[in-house]
Amino acid sequence: MVVAEIRIELKPGVADPEGQNTKKALELLGFEGIANVRSIKLFVVELDASPAEAKKACEEMCRKLLANPVIQKFSVQIK
Amino acid sequence: MVVAEIRIELKPGVADPEGQNTKKALELLGFEGIANVRSIKLFVVELDASPAEAKKACEEMCRKLLANPVIQKFSVQIK
Repeated sequence: MVVAEIRIELKPGVADPEGQNTKKALELLGFEGIANVRSIKLFVVELDASPAEAKKACEEMCRKLLANPVIQKFSVQIK
Repeated sequence: MVVAEIRIELKPGVADPEGQNTKKALELLGFEGIANVRSIKLFVVELDASPAEAKKACEEMCRKLLANPVIQKFSVQIK
């Protein structure tokens, strides 16, 4: 059993309203010195495959379902 | 400038409908051998502070705003 972490984040230059609003909310709560907040989605997939097969399958999952290639980039890490 | 990664995930035993539905959708697309999918939220916070201060501040952010202590646990990693 292989555990793969799929990290899906916005491409540089794409607006991140969730991150921006989180930053604003934190500042309203009194937190200081925050330069930036980015929001990222992580999927932890447990797969019955070899590490190499799992990496390939997870990249295919991103292309077919999990990520929007217009605005998001993804990376897969096998743990 | 310190970059902190705040990872917010469901506590063990809490239902993860997003992960379960993602698993179902992947299986419908033909992916095989998936034992489990978990969905996790990541915030990358850039802070103007020392690493120790940043870790403390991020943990406080989770307690005050980002995490729901009833169903979620959080961890902070300074990069």
